[in-house]
This record gives sequence, C-alpha cells and structure tokens, in this order.
Amino acid sequence: MIASWYAETAWLGGPHVTAGVVLETAGGRITSVTPGVSVPPPGARLLRGVTLPGLVNVHSHAFHRALRGRTHAAQGSFWTWREQMYAVATRLTPDSYHRLATAVYAEMALAGITCVGEFHYLHHQPEGSSYADPNAMGEALMAAAQDAGVRLTLLDACYLAGGIGRPPSETQLRFTDGDAQRWADRAAQLRPTGTVRIGAAIHSVRAVPADQLTTVADWAAEREVPLHMHLSEQEAENIDCLAATGRTPTALLAEAGALGPRSVAVHATHLTDRDIVLLGGSGTGVCMCPTTERDLADGIGPARALVDAGSPLSLGSDSHAVIDLLEEARAVELDERLLTRTRGHWPPADLLRAATSTGAAALGWPEAGRLEAGALADFVTVDLGSVRTAGADTDAAVGAVVFAATAADVRDVVVDGRIVVDGGRHRLVADVPAALTAAVHEVTGRVAA
Amino acid sequence: MIASWYAETAWLGGPHVTAGVVLETAGGRITSVTPGVSVPPPGARLLRGVTLPGLVNVHSHAFHRALRGRTHAAQGSFWTWREQMYAVATRLTPDSYHRLATAVYAEMALAGITCVGEFHYLHHQPEGSSYADPNAMGEALMAAAQDAGVRLTLLDACYLAGGIGRPPSETQLRFTDGDAQRWADRAAQLRPTGTVRIGAAIHSVRAVPADQLTTVADWAAEREVPLHMHLSEQEAENIDCLAATGRTPTALLAEAGALGPRSVAVHATHLTDRDIVLLGGSGTGVCMCPTTERDLADGIGPARALVDAGSPLSLGSDSHAVIDLLEEARAVELDERLLTRTRGHWPPADLLRAATSTGAAALGWPEAGRLEAGALADFVTVDLGSVRTAGADTDAAVGAVVFAATAADVRDVVVDGRIVVDGGRHRLVADVPAALTAAVHEVTGRVAA
Repeated sequence: MIASWYAETAWLGGPHVTAGVVLETAGGRITSVTPGVSVPPPGARLLRGVTLPGLVNVHSHAFHRALRGRTHAAQGSFWTWREQMYAVATRLTPDSYHRLATAVYAEMALAGITCVGEFHYLHHQPEGSSYADPNAMGEALMAAAQDAGVRLTLLDACYLAGGIGRPPSETQLRFTDGDAQRWADRAAQLRPTGTVRIGAAIHSVRAVPADQLTTVADWAAEREVPLHMHLSEQEAENIDCLAATGRTPTALLAEAGALGPRSVAVHATHLTDRDIVLLGGSGTGVCMCPTTERDLADGIGPARALVDAGSPLSLGSDSHAVIDLLEEARAVELDERLLTRTRGHWPPADLLRAATSTGAAALGWPEAGRLEAGALADFVTVDLGSVRTAGADTDAAVGAVVFAATAADVRDVVVDGRIVVDGGRHRLVADVPAALTAAVHEVTGRVAA
Repeated sequence: MIASWYAETAWLGGPHVTAGVVLETAGGRITSVTPGVSVPPPGARLLRGVTLPGLVNVHSHAFHRALRGRTHAAQGSFWTWREQMYAVATRLTPDSYHRLATAVYAEMALAGITCVGEFHYLHHQPEGSSYADPNAMGEALMAAAQDAGVRLTLLDACYLAGGIGRPPSETQLRFTDGDAQRWADRAAQLRPTGTVRIGAAIHSVRAVPADQLTTVADWAAEREVPLHMHLSEQEAENIDCLAATGRTPTALLAEAGALGPRSVAVHATHLTDRDIVLLGGSGTGVCMCPTTERDLADGIGPARALVDAGSPLSLGSDSHAVIDLLEEARAVELDERLLTRTRGHWPPADLLRAATSTGAAALGWPEAGRLEAGALADFVTVDLGSVRTAGADTDAAVGAVVFAATAADVRDVVVDGRIVVDGGRHRLVADVPAALTAAVHEVTGRVAA
C-alpha cells in the first residue's frame, strides 16, 4: 500500500490550489498534509495535475444508466420518461442489478467519484413478494460498490403509494413494503461495512402517506443516519400535495419531523419562499442534480437562495444522463446565470465544496471530503494538461477544474488509501465500457455483444 | 491518400444510423456511399463507432480560448467579462494570434470540428494603425486553420463604433477601419484558398452605425458570401437601439437589407415576436451558442420558435468556454426543456443537422455536411464504446451521440479526404495541449512552461 503521495498541486479548500503537496496515508486515513514541498520525496507516488478530495455523488439511481441516450426520440415530460424508466425497473434481478451497478459505479470511479449515495427503492420481486433475503437488492448494490472500489451510502427508500391517496401501480409493487413499519423492520436488517453506510429515504410525499412520514424520520433520527427525500421536482407534486393536505411538500415534511441537519432534500426545484425558509432554517441540505433537471425538464431550482437561507449544497448525477460531477458543479452556476443574467453567484471553491466535503457529510461521511490529517484517504487527480484544461495556471486552476475539466480529465482516484483508477484505467473492473454494454443490454432486453 | 473507408455505422441523415457503410473518396470529395456492407472491403480504412459528417462550428472567436476557466472568480456580467476579454485582445500580434489560433483550431479538430467560422474583428495594430499588410491578422487565422487541418470561413467583421452613437474605445481602435467603405476595401483584398472561404460580418448594431449597415450587406450580397451578425445577445443592445432608432436591432438590420438566406444572426437571444417573423420569414439563419450563452449569462434564445418561423439552425462554440459541438447540440434541447418543462423539442437527428449540414451552409460550404456522393470528404467518427456512450445500440446511436457523447469520444477526423485526427491524436499538431498552454501563456502574460 502506497503511504506517500506527491501532488503537483492540490486543492486544500481555499480559492487557489497549493503547489507541491505531500500526502501521507495509513489505514485508509490521511495522516499528514505538507504543502510547499518542491521535490517529490523518495518513494512518493506522483499525482500529476490538481489533486482534490474525492468527488461525492449524493444522489444516484444506478439503473437509470441503462436509459442513457434512449429517451429523446419522442415528445413528452418527466412522466412519460418515467414510463420508460419503469420498463427497465421491472427487468432487474439481484444478479443483473449487481452487474449493472458495478459497471455504473466503475464509470463513477473513472469520473473521480469516490463515494455515492444510492437512493434505492427496487426492494422486492417484480410482483411484489420479498426475495428469500428481503434485502437481496440492497445487498447487490452494496456488493457492486465494493466491487467497483467506491464508498456507498445505501439510502433505503420507503415507497408505499402510487401518488397521494393512490395504491401502488403494478410496476411499483416491487417498491413497496406495505407500510412504513415494515419498511423500517426490513431496513433495520441492513448492516454497514467498512466502506458502506446505511441511510434512510422518503421517496417523496407522493410515495409515503403523510401519516407514515414520521416513522421513517424517526428511524433515521434514532440511528443518527442521513434521511434523504425527493422534493418538489415537478409542480404536479406540489399541486397534488396542496390539494390533499393543504400544505406544500416541504411544509408536510417539516410537520412530520423530517427536516433537519441530517436531512437532504433532492431537487427542491419548485419552492415557495416559506419552503426555502423551512429548509434553510432547519439546516436541511439540498442536493441539486442539474444535468438530470435539464434532461427531465424539471426547471432550475433556487440553489443560491437555499444556501443563503442555511441549506448546505451537495450534488448528484441522479439519472446518469451524464456522470460528471464537475459538469453538475458548474451547471449550478451556469443555470443561475441563465435565470439572473448575471455571473459569479458561486466562487469556484464553493462548488468544489459542494462536490466534496458537503456531499460527504450529506451521505453520513463527515470525516471525508477534505485533504487534511485525519480525513479518509479518498482523493482524485484532475489533469491540467488536456486540451480542455491546457492553459490554466496555478492561479486559475480551481476555476479551470470547475468550468473546463470534465470526467474525461480524471487521471487517478484513490479510495480508502487504495488506487482504484490509475492513469485513467480502472484497476478492479478491467473493461468498464464492456461491462456497461453487457449490463445495459441485459436489462434493456438486447443480446450482449 | 486513403480512398476507401468502412464505417461500422454511419449517420446518413435519418433518425437512425446505418450499419456497414463504405465511403469512397477522391480529390477531397465523397465519390460513393454504399450502406449495408457486412465485411470491410480489402484496403478500406476501418472507422469504429458512428461516422458523421464533419461537425461545423459556425461561430468562433479563437482568442477567447485564452480566458477559459479564468473569469469566474468575481461577480459581474457580460460587460465585465468583456473587459477581461479586451485585456487579451490588446496583446495579440499576427504571430501570437497565429500560434493561439492554430492550437485552438487543433483543439476543434480533436473535437470533430472540420469547418469553423471565425468572426474576426481584430484587424489592426493595438493603437489602430494598419499593419504593413492590412489583412495580416486575418491571414494569420487563415494560416492557422490550414496548419490545424480544418476548413475556415473567415467572417471579416466590420466594427466601427463603441456603442450606438459612441466612438470606439481605446481597445476598440484596433477593430475599426474608420468607416464601412474602408472596411469593404480592406476585406476585398482577402483571397480564398481551397480550404478557406471569405465571408462578411456586421459585428452588431452597436458597432456599425445604422447608415453604414447597407454597405456591408451589399458587399456580401455582391459576392454571394455569408453575412453574419451578433444580434440581441444582451437586452442592453435592444434598449439602446430602440432609444436611438425606434427599432429593434432585427428591424434595423431588416431595413438595411442585411437579412436573408445567406445571413446568419448569432445568439438572437432577446427577440420580439416581430423579430422572429422578420428573421424566419427572410430565411435568415440563427446560430445558437448555448455554452457561451450560459457562461455569459445571456439567457436562452427562442431557437425552436425561430426554426418554426423559417430560420435554419446552426451552432457555435463562440467564446470557447467549452469546445464541444455535441454539448452545444444537446444544450439547445436541454435549455428548451428548462424553459418549457417538457421534453422532445428537437429530434436528435435535427440537432445533428444543425451541427453539420446547416452549419456548413451557414458558412458558405453548401457542398459539405452530408455523407453522400459529391459532398466534401469531411467526416468524423464518434466512439460508441467509451464509458459515456457504452450501451447504445444501433437503434439508439443518434440519441447517444447527441445526448451522451462528448468531444472526448471523437476518434477519427477526416478533412478534405485527409486524416487529421487518428484515434484521438492530431496528425499535424503533435502536442495540442502543449501548443495551447504556450499560446495561452503568451497572450495572458505568463511565462510559457
């Protein structure tokens, strides 16, 4: 195990990168960080480019990767897209989902993602009965993350209804545990590992009846684990919720005790001013997924206003139309520019924090996401010498990483002190594109090559 | 010179790709296209992935590449960004601009761009006097395109004023020829080559007084060459133009005879309904530059409405915050989704047409942009086996190219029947990132590595 690393430059949290940084690691932790070292120490592994804390993908539905590029032929909406997504959902088994998720998490590793939050609701057999092991699907995801060399927080999602006051649809039968208590009993059987933690999720106020929200919130609170929820991604959810309860989804979740510093609202696209105050004032995090929010025609959420109100910002690739956390990071700023017609809403370092330390905390890994002694030894090196990044200097490197680099510029990825990606090659999954192709074909009904 | 090419799949203009396509070329032209060939003919060069017509970048300011990643630290607007851009503009010489543009056009070639429209207004010495050769700067750009192996349309821009009714600023002295007739006389001395054509540009109604617009329009009409113009990128332009003339910029240009099928309005972001009718009804093209329009906080232009009104759509990377025509193509659809909250405004093949044949026509190369006998032998192959595109099938390949592939997935690029990029490597510029780094440092005042 390499114990000494020499980063040509490293981002230590400020507005600029630092040249010549020696990182020492042991037992999966960073043990020291020494800046300003002009010559690599003997035996140190050289990291060429800018070394950052590992990127954290706070919101993933791994199986959506199978839809990439396939949903653009016809007109439609979020809801017609969901029909296509459900067609894949019905085909997955624990084995095929393990293969697909391994390939998808390996793609994430190649993109510099060292920790992923999987918002998981495909719990049961297609017709709704439990697998012999009731957590077979969740455990397949846990194994996939291990096989792909990334950390995982399995956000086990309670999903009971097919809309407010509506039973689950046929496809949704495999999502539901029947009621929140049975969800809680099943989820309680999940066991963390060294690189996997367990969290909870309320799929949405569409999928969890108002009188059962507290059961999920209490489960997470008792265990002090993250509680994530889709929130107001589509206006239809707001309209339905107001009609049924007289409250916005945010207000309903607030009343149920589901907001707070361990909670994360995903999307939070269509909010009232009071919703923003409720989320920010309670310290509830927000996870923006801008490439998905573009793809699904959701709209642009009030990220700046939420952060100003007190919500920590994190990022997710969600449907995996794109897997590129740097693209998610810059999209937060760029979409805000489109809304406001002004530039400079987010210093680049703030966007990197969203993609690293804030994301790690949102997934229950507060000891990750920073290059400092005591932090988990998860880091990633971005090439400053590609056609995309060439011309950046130390002065402009943070801006270049956020606004010019892409996932294709990630060279080296270290997770838990171990090299997972080495010069752009995944060490554990030999041929990631082939693994993706085979797994996607398997679940979209095509013959693998 | 290779005369026979075997494309695993090729996009021949329809909604799907075609498997096993043999292209034959001679004298820089495609001489035959044979689909459905199951085995590569002996001696044919294999093109792995999807082969498309070469991508066409209709709107470029090559020197803006020097700013990539450097303009995001502070708050501001289009206008404060322009100050940073002007600081680079003042430093360029014919030699340094040749070096920078060669590197930038080489980056474009690596991204699959085979033809670029350079909207060029840096005509003179910094204090305003002519170079010994009055077209030294334009000729530097022509040489750069040749050296980088791409076609060029030099859109020589008339730029006379510093705003409506205002003289040029100190920086703008190098842009102006004094009046439109002197612009016309200088531009008339430019000579096309086999891979370079000459067009005209009205920088904007800010920069060309209303009574001189017709001189430029007539110059282009007499020669039957393209006439491009920045149009309503910022609302301030509209406000100033209305105040000074009582007309929108579009109406003013229409009255001056500057609209029509050889004209292209760039950006066209902030339009009235009547503007859209004037542009579409006259067959004026529109060139959208979505990554720049995000970056500069311009807003989202009415691309769909313009095309419905009759305007052909093309695409440009403009400020080169990003050089990726596929990203521009999908951004047109994705930004429309953000505005409308619905999906599917553009079939993927329509977006590929914008990036190929429509763009080529907009630059005065109507014989380019299609894989058919008689067309120019410009084509590009996109990898369908990268982590980004893996899983796409023949059925979904057009969608995958537009919505999942990036510039990093371009493998082979042929211009004028000649291989310019071979397996991701540029054959004429050995080390494109090094060339970019040196050239950017030269014009941003830093010491080259």
